Amino acid sequence: MLDRILYRLYYIDMVDSENAGNEIGVQLGQDQPAYKAVGEHFERLINSGRLQPGDRLPTVRLLAERTGLNKATIVQGFSELRRRGLVTSRPGRGTIVAASPSAQSVPVADRIQSLYRHLLPEPGWGSELPEYDFSALWPAPSMFPLDAFRRIHEKLMRGRPELLQYGSAQGYHPLREYLEERARRIGIGSGQAVVVQGSQQGLDLIFRTFLNPGDAVAVESPTYAGILPELALHEARVLAVPMETDGLDVASLQSLIRNERIKLLYFMPNFQNPTGITMSEEKRNALARLAAATGTLLVEDDFEHDLRFSGRERRPVAGRMGSANVIYLSTFSKTLLPGLRMGWMIAPAALAEPLVLAKQYTDIHTSVLTQAAVNEFCRSGQYDRHLVRLRREYRKRLDGARRTLALHMPDGSIWTEPDGGFSLWVTLPEGYDSSVLSSEAVSRGVHLWPGSRFYPGGRGGERSFRLSLSLASEQEIAAGIAILGKLLRVRRAARRARANDARNILFL
Amino acid sequence: MLDRILYRLYYIDMVDSENAGNEIGVQLGQDQPAYKAVGEHFERLINSGRLQPGDRLPTVRLLAERTGLNKATIVQGFSELRRRGLVTSRPGRGTIVAASPSAQSVPVADRIQSLYRHLLPEPGWGSELPEYDFSALWPAPSMFPLDAFRRIHEKLMRGRPELLQYGSAQGYHPLREYLEERARRIGIGSGQAVVVQGSQQGLDLIFRTFLNPGDAVAVESPTYAGILPELALHEARVLAVPMETDGLDVASLQSLIRNERIKLLYFMPNFQNPTGITMSEEKRNALARLAAATGTLLVEDDFEHDLRFSGRERRPVAGRMGSANVIYLSTFSKTLLPGLRMGWMIAPAALAEPLVLAKQYTDIHTSVLTQAAVNEFCRSGQYDRHLVRLRREYRKRLDGARRTLALHMPDGSIWTEPDGGFSLWVTLPEGYDSSVLSSEAVSRGVHLWPGSRFYPGGRGGERSFRLSLSLASEQEIAAGIAILGKLLRVRRAARRARANDARNILFL
Repeated sequence: MLDRILYRLYYIDMVDSENAGNEIGVQLGQDQPAYKAVGEHFERLINSGRLQPGDRLPTVRLLAERTGLNKATIVQGFSELRRRGLVTSRPGRGTIVAASPSAQSVPVADRIQSLYRHLLPEPGWGSELPEYDFSALWPAPSMFPLDAFRRIHEKLMRGRPELLQYGSAQGYHPLREYLEERARRIGIGSGQAVVVQGSQQGLDLIFRTFLNPGDAVAVESPTYAGILPELALHEARVLAVPMETDGLDVASLQSLIRNERIKLLYFMPNFQNPTGITMSEEKRNALARLAAATGTLLVEDDFEHDLRFSGRERRPVAGRMGSANVIYLSTFSKTLLPGLRMGWMIAPAALAEPLVLAKQYTDIHTSVLTQAAVNEFCRSGQYDRHLVRLRREYRKRLDGARRTLALHMPDGSIWTEPDGGFSLWVTLPEGYDSSVLSSEAVSRGVHLWPGSRFYPGGRGGERSFRLSLSLASEQEIAAGIAILGKLLRVRRAARRARANDARNILFL
Repeated sequence: MLDRILYRLYYIDMVDSENAGNEIGVQLGQDQPAYKAVGEHFERLINSGRLQPGDRLPTVRLLAERTGLNKATIVQGFSELRRRGLVTSRPGRGTIVAASPSAQSVPVADRIQSLYRHLLPEPGWGSELPEYDFSALWPAPSMFPLDAFRRIHEKLMRGRPELLQYGSAQGYHPLREYLEERARRIGIGSGQAVVVQGSQQGLDLIFRTFLNPGDAVAVESPTYAGILPELALHEARVLAVPMETDGLDVASLQSLIRNERIKLLYFMPNFQNPTGITMSEEKRNALARLAAATGTLLVEDDFEHDLRFSGRERRPVAGRMGSANVIYLSTFSKTLLPGLRMGWMIAPAALAEPLVLAKQYTDIHTSVLTQAAVNEFCRSGQYDRHLVRLRREYRKRLDGARRTLALHMPDGSIWTEPDGGFSLWVTLPEGYDSSVLSSEAVSRGVHLWPGSRFYPGGRGGERSFRLSLSLASEQEIAAGIAILGKLLRVRRAARRARANDARNILFL
């Protein structure tokens, strides 16, 4: 249960009413009665739009547990909100945000806030934890190599104070060497490793260093949802390049480039997020040629490279044609322990240099101890053995999901067959809507991300959704997909009924 | 010895020829002979200005050790550089950068690079490790609580996978609570904790969130050297507010504010870096009033708050007069383990909110495991006991340094008497130059930072220098200061001799 709560902390505490407890805790002790803190907390969430009309507030019991306040205090806080018309209570449904909350706006610094709306939980994801969580692209905690890391820490923290002293901005040297060696093994002939706080920081450093406001940036469509607000924040103009079944549509990218200067292309070569698609050899070569010819900076986010369980391993674009302007980016977040925040880039020296300086002024460097621990895990061979286990497990889950999808999805549905990773992408036939499915599924305990989240401007993916299979067991995957199937059948039946009604009307 | 090398990695690997080994290692295996990699590495350092004419290259022996290359390879690399006129060899002095290196410029992205010149090692800090290192503001590694942290990790990594999963952007909740409670104890009545990767990231997030290009930012003069390039990067206009013996000159700040809108003031209330000065009660109140009246955002960097060993503890400015626009910033880097990269802010909710979002897109969050470990160390009472030991140790070192300064500094020298921290600020009498002292000291194995480093625009501090006492033992502190005294006496004698010569000439 605690795990489940913690999973849901992703994107984030301050946007998730489930975490109200934390926020309220913060406000206590500030010369006001506790019930007022409760009321003010939810008022803030409502006024800022994080809680929308119709959303359910957490239960009194849950809040009491999380805050340590007694239930009477919370009930009193809710009464205050009710008195002021901000919420209503409905028997059996709990406390609900009222239709027209007073629109007093909360002073916040700037545009950052609105951009991140994008990453809020789906409407209706309220205080209840999903029974079947197919939403976040988080690795399976049951597979975390905790014992190995405990032993490594035990070893590293004996008499090596230098691992706890200030360190290098570029990264802990033995780990950099390991990463560069690994890069060479997968076909990236040269380049310097730069260690970062997860690939998110890599992206942020790249954008800070190389983008100016107004620059055109091309992304796959659909793409990683987190990059869209990030690019908006850097005031980039985002251009969408459609995905095809063998990777992004290179012809479409070429025609974009003919029309204007594209400063940067962000793409994922393997098990693309959200589609799971792997880019073909031909397209990889075409991208490498394009980058060399046009000077467009390629950012190759190979976030699940090590999770391939079928198909042939393909050399990264960064390993082709000299690739003087390709930055290769990867992470240990999907294969190891995301809480460690460990990612890395491999960049040509001329690009690595300013990135290291940007890293330096951003946070001086990444934890030396953590880098040393990951280095130890990798060099001892444990990482490679761990990957074997992960690939076996995720393959099993994806196979299971595909079998269940075949049983339950409407005729005409299609889904991708990724060669790695732990998610797949389902597209329903004409007439279905994945946002509707997503919000109906919530009440049945199933969470998933509808397709539109992954499209620049939210345009596209209306019939698609991503299923992430890492937080559910095989049984849960089967049961959750069966629920989705049932919801879709009910909807189809309703539509048939309506169609019949319509026909009857026509023939009246 | 390894420790010493690692200490010097601060500001940083890529700017320090001592670390040439790492850089060269990176470039090997890239289809070129090893000696070429050696040559090209130094060529790059020379062309980029990191190595200046007259600088000494590391010895062949040291490079061989660091790179694992054989000496012949390195000698051949150096020959190549000599052949091309980039370096010269002088008997007994090793290999020296030539007076007019070919000025081929290295392609780098942008202005980031030149800004960081500021933080390069002093000229002449070459391949040799200092015997007496008074330069960096790094805590004493002999005091690191390694065993305690090892035990804590041992405990945390048993069956708590949630500490290794994705976490909250604002920070690990129990740690946030602890920090907020601690803030209340030192007089900050309200505000939310935001956990960051060391206070450097705190500064970066604040600037990203609240500064626009061209905004006026006031800093103490002298101030933390690292903030100057950081502000330049954010295109802030930096305004200097002189330091007085009881904190920054509030009248001077007021007159700046009368002339233009100051967006932000950055200051250090306790044991200010570099002077060691603590701000008086009156000035703290004046700043709080000023902030309330003018809307200037105050950034109160209390980086060594917990290291007070004498004098009365004073409430932070953030704890006065409501302080709706004061962000309090602190760090575990000086008191605990800088390698962990753990800092925090306490900010009013309206300011914390956009900062948390900025943190989110920067790197999602700080390592949960590390936060949990620090939380455990603090809540178990070990942190407070650790502070008692630190204060005792640093007081002893500062007392020792002051006694030795009194014996060896020229008449008319003054130095600060900080109530905490581990550095002090020495000002020599008229006619002395701390940059000259610094470069003369290098050859005697003593490293220190001359005063001009800490002044906006490098203007000021010509007779001052900072002595950081954390990396040297009491004996080394005494011996190092004695060497400085001797250098200063020689210089004074030379000046007297010149003065006599001049007099003789006058009377000829």
